[in-house]
Amino acid sequence: MPYIHVRLAGELTREQKKQIVEEMTCTMERIAGKPREYVIVNFDETREENWGWGGQLLDELE
Amino acid sequence: MPYIHVRLAGELTREQKKQIVEEMTCTMERIAGKPREYVIVNFDETREENWGWGGQLLDELE
Amino acid sequence: MPYIHVRLAGELTREQKKQIVEEMTCTMERIAGKPREYVIVNFDETREENWGWGGQLLDELE
Amino acid sequence: MPYIHVRLAGELTREQKKQIVEEMTCTMERIAGKPREYVIVNFDETREENWGWGGQLLDELE
Amino acid sequence: MPYIHVRLAGELTREQKKQIVEEMTCTMERIAGKPREYVIVNFDETREENWGWGGQLLDELE
Amino acid sequence: MPYIHVRLAGELTREQKKQIVEEMTCTMERIAGKPREYVIVNFDETREENWGWGGQLLDELE
Repeated sequence: MPYIHVRLAGELTREQKKQIVEEMTCTMERIAGKPREYVIVNFDETREENWGWGGQLLDELE
Repeated sequence: MPYIHVRLAGELTREQKKQIVEEMTCTMERIAGKPREYVIVNFDETREENWGWGGQLLDELE
Repeated sequence: MPYIHVRLAGELTREQKKQIVEEMTCTMERIAGKPREYVIVNFDETREENWGWGGQLLDELE
Repeated sequence: MPYIHVRLAGELTREQKKQIVEEMTCTMERIAGKPREYVIVNFDETREENWGWGGQLLDELE
Repeated sequence: MPYIHVRLAGELTREQKKQIVEEMTCTMERIAGKPREYVIVNFDETREENWGWGGQLLDELE
Repeated sequence: MPYIHVRLAGELTREQKKQIVEEMTCTMERIAGKPREYVIVNFDETREENWGWGGQLLDELE
């Protein structure tokens, strides 16, 4: 029952999400021995200004 | 202090959220013995393409 | 694909978890129209001192 | 590696986020002894109707 | 700033975690174009009885 | 209703948690204008080997 939550700054295309789901599912199947029908992935796309790192907002850092 | 986070594909109406909050609060009160003023529920409504299951995006599965 | 995360202070018995899973699954099925085989529940049992509310630790409040 | 997730009802301005990131990073550095370049903060701004407390939606309570 | 949270039933060895971190970091770098020093992975290992699926506890299903 | 989740590598003493709760609650009250009785903090203390950063486990980095 791995539940994988991917929270990131910015957005992904549908195609990127599809490939990431495929690869992460394979990773959990191959390395952790989890059946693929148990692997759930969930994406959370958020704005850069919603992230802080080292005391600064991410959009100040880049 | 139960904090219940409900993350789902698609959207709920305000009325559905209201009923789910009522029922989940009762469930925690009755079964887990938690005072209802301690029960917090939070909804996270996300797009179908933001979910993967069994290696595929949810919008391919349905 | 509702994923329900229940984070609470203290512990639940296996029987309590079982009943909560049954009820929350029914709630999502009945009110939100989600097929029950899509409903996932996950419990996170944590110590009282790991919660703060209103500026105090939960174990000071009770 | 503290990862701090702040989920709240309503929205914050960019300036508020910036100040909260600064203060929370200092808090973790000063009290927990964590290097500031390890402190990550992430904001999740959600609608009031997406919160339930004590069996009611937050927008009924206020 | 992808933050990847992997919550799973059961435990992983340190070696499995190491390989999963390597692969998921590559996935985010290659497909989403994220610099690898921005990719954070966090594992949460929980008991089987802390998961419900389709209205039953996971340890009843397997 | 800010809910603040602090996930970190290693452990904190009860005194550290108490001070962090006080400071984060003040931060949310002062900067975001949230009533303190709405501020919830939750700590999640996890092992170093449960974190990956930049493709390596955290215990390899330090």
